[in-house]
Amino acid sequence: MTISPDRDRLVETMEAQASIGATDGGGLHRLALSEEDERVRDWFSAQMDAAGLSTRIDEFGNMFGRREGTDPAAAPVLLGSHLDSQPSGGIYDGALGVVAALEFVRTLDDEGIETERPIEIVNWTNEEGSRFQPAMQGSGVWAGAHDKEEEYATTDEDGVSLKTALEGIGYLGDAPAEPLEEYDSYLELHVEQGPYLEDGGHQVGVVTGIVGFVWGAITFSGEPNHSGSTPMAHRSDALVGAADVITQVRRIPSTLGPRTVGTTGYVSASPNSINIIPGDVTFTFGFRDPDDEVVDEAFDRVLLEADAAADREGLDWRFEERMRVSSVEFADRCVDAVESAATSLEYDRTRIFSGAGHDASHASRVCDTGMVFAVSENGKSHTEAEYTSWDDCYAAANTLANAALELARPTDTADS
Amino acid sequence: MTISPDRDRLVETMEAQASIGATDGGGLHRLALSEEDERVRDWFSAQMDAAGLSTRIDEFGNMFGRREGTDPAAAPVLLGSHLDSQPSGGIYDGALGVVAALEFVRTLDDEGIETERPIEIVNWTNEEGSRFQPAMQGSGVWAGAHDKEEEYATTDEDGVSLKTALEGIGYLGDAPAEPLEEYDSYLELHVEQGPYLEDGGHQVGVVTGIVGFVWGAITFSGEPNHSGSTPMAHRSDALVGAADVITQVRRIPSTLGPRTVGTTGYVSASPNSINIIPGDVTFTFGFRDPDDEVVDEAFDRVLLEADAAADREGLDWRFEERMRVSSVEFADRCVDAVESAATSLEYDRTRIFSGAGHDASHASRVCDTGMVFAVSENGKSHTEAEYTSWDDCYAAANTLANAALELARPTDTADS
Repeated sequence: MTISPDRDRLVETMEAQASIGATDGGGLHRLALSEEDERVRDWFSAQMDAAGLSTRIDEFGNMFGRREGTDPAAAPVLLGSHLDSQPSGGIYDGALGVVAALEFVRTLDDEGIETERPIEIVNWTNEEGSRFQPAMQGSGVWAGAHDKEEEYATTDEDGVSLKTALEGIGYLGDAPAEPLEEYDSYLELHVEQGPYLEDGGHQVGVVTGIVGFVWGAITFSGEPNHSGSTPMAHRSDALVGAADVITQVRRIPSTLGPRTVGTTGYVSASPNSINIIPGDVTFTFGFRDPDDEVVDEAFDRVLLEADAAADREGLDWRFEERMRVSSVEFADRCVDAVESAATSLEYDRTRIFSGAGHDASHASRVCDTGMVFAVSENGKSHTEAEYTSWDDCYAAANTLANAALELARPTDTADS
Repeated sequence: MTISPDRDRLVETMEAQASIGATDGGGLHRLALSEEDERVRDWFSAQMDAAGLSTRIDEFGNMFGRREGTDPAAAPVLLGSHLDSQPSGGIYDGALGVVAALEFVRTLDDEGIETERPIEIVNWTNEEGSRFQPAMQGSGVWAGAHDKEEEYATTDEDGVSLKTALEGIGYLGDAPAEPLEEYDSYLELHVEQGPYLEDGGHQVGVVTGIVGFVWGAITFSGEPNHSGSTPMAHRSDALVGAADVITQVRRIPSTLGPRTVGTTGYVSASPNSINIIPGDVTFTFGFRDPDDEVVDEAFDRVLLEADAAADREGLDWRFEERMRVSSVEFADRCVDAVESAATSLEYDRTRIFSGAGHDASHASRVCDTGMVFAVSENGKSHTEAEYTSWDDCYAAANTLANAALELARPTDTADS
């Protein structure tokens, strides 16, 4: 059995959420727990009420809506993503996954379909990690990857704690921030945020897992001397050491594998004055690969490069590991459900490993998990220029809905 | 004839100035035209009055004190440096040169020496260029290298104009900011701010000139994409381009000459987030050499490197030249006077080219100019750790005094 989500309603609902925190450039500024996030949460809460879902907010602000199944003992199927955005994010990102989950339950009602399993939809708190760190915070607490009290204490740049911010927008809920029962499965639709689907001419991605990654920071300390009167041989220039390693962060992936990526996203120099040799420089590095051993190897290599650069330039150095997440391989039954749905709907689809982290990574600790990717034009993400056509949004939402329907066991095929 | 400055008085006067704007770390925070600068100016004004000098403040805040000579038609000898400091500067820097000039006229009085030529001592406004740019601003206006009105309009980070700041501390004077007569010569004592004297075991530097330099900034613009889902081959990473060029700024001097130096002191990345490929990066470069053609060559090479880096990484780029100063060779008679003084005083001295810019660079446009360097321990400068022993301070001040005495023509040897 298949169902057909309402394309016009999907688009209208996407446009409705995109109007909350809209930027002049056609994107979103909807940081976690901001006033804009409060408004989109209020809007989403009203949508869930209107869809007849029984809603709950948990102690970490994660928002759930539940549609009961016919079997009181059956484990639910959970679907969702996140409504928060980067400072200059796109309107699709996680929002498409939340809206597609809502559209799924609306379509079940339209078509009068009952499922054995309860359906729950979810909007996770702070997936982006822009205002509070780490990213994927709400799903991480829910899945037991993070300690709730520790995450409550994380602060934004103004020193406001996450718990205070949650209370401030009225989304510090009563439900425990943990799975309240055993879950059958979790499905998440997200835009790809990369170019693989478009490059291959595919419309829908059947996600088979999520790359592992490591994030760290290196600080070099040298001598902040006069830029004119200090001969080259007397210099210990922290920025030269950093530049050496940054060029190697660019090169190391090419020595490891076709899916390995490495990035320095952040750099800060001190005293950062045109006429003074930089005395201290801190920069970040990050490596990702589907194979955790490759990530470990990249990490080892960048530390070797830092040591060699420090030696050449006469610098002290130290590093800090900021985050390490193992790669995830999704459960075959969830991957198969997504692939089967895309195939029966005749979308051009391919299996793909996610290069970005997602709430699905944490959810996979709790239950069998799968993901659907919508194609991203030019692979652009975390920018107002992010774009996925409505046709492609619908194809992914349709795939999600039919995969979820299979997992939730519609009653007329429940004994199949 | 030789004179002997008072070592104890020199040290006491140095300590007195060092107490104004003193930092906990033993250095100075005495930005140009700040409240601390006002206090050290008031103190210096009182010292000049006590020494019987006739003082004047010019329209750019440059402070002069004059001791008349015996020949009303003789062109004066000018001595001085600057009392302003970097945000975390040392207590020697320019202050030693101002205090040594003051000590010279005090010693003339002590020893009852008349000179044919008038002696003037000076504290130049804003040599450091920390709060207002450019550096060497007061001497530059006085010497006609800069337009007074344009420099009045320069602003600090809070938008306060230099003229407003001058008025605010009461040092917008009446005297024209230009040479009021023909000057015979200008002598400046400064700490070396480099390691050459110490490396060679020398106590006093006979400065023969000042290197030329060029400063510029390069901006690379790429694509700020997701650090995980963007394959390496799809990236246009502005920070990788910058790192490539920064490593070349380190290398280019080694291809040009033993005295060539190259520095990137400043870097700024956007959005500067661990999880986003940098879209825009701006960094500075600076090259110095005694030979202006070498500076030109370094400049050309860094632009070639930027073009190659942009090509590799698929970046747009642009550059801006921020400052270009030609090298200066001091007048033989001033260099000889300094060398002759150091030799007759039996100090271990050597001829040296200055790697840093000084007010003497501008003064050399107006009259014959020379400089004396005091040895800097470990070459440290523009840091609280800057250090020159009192013995070394005295050796340089003694050299300055005796060189200035020769140029000013003491009356009992005036016919020699």
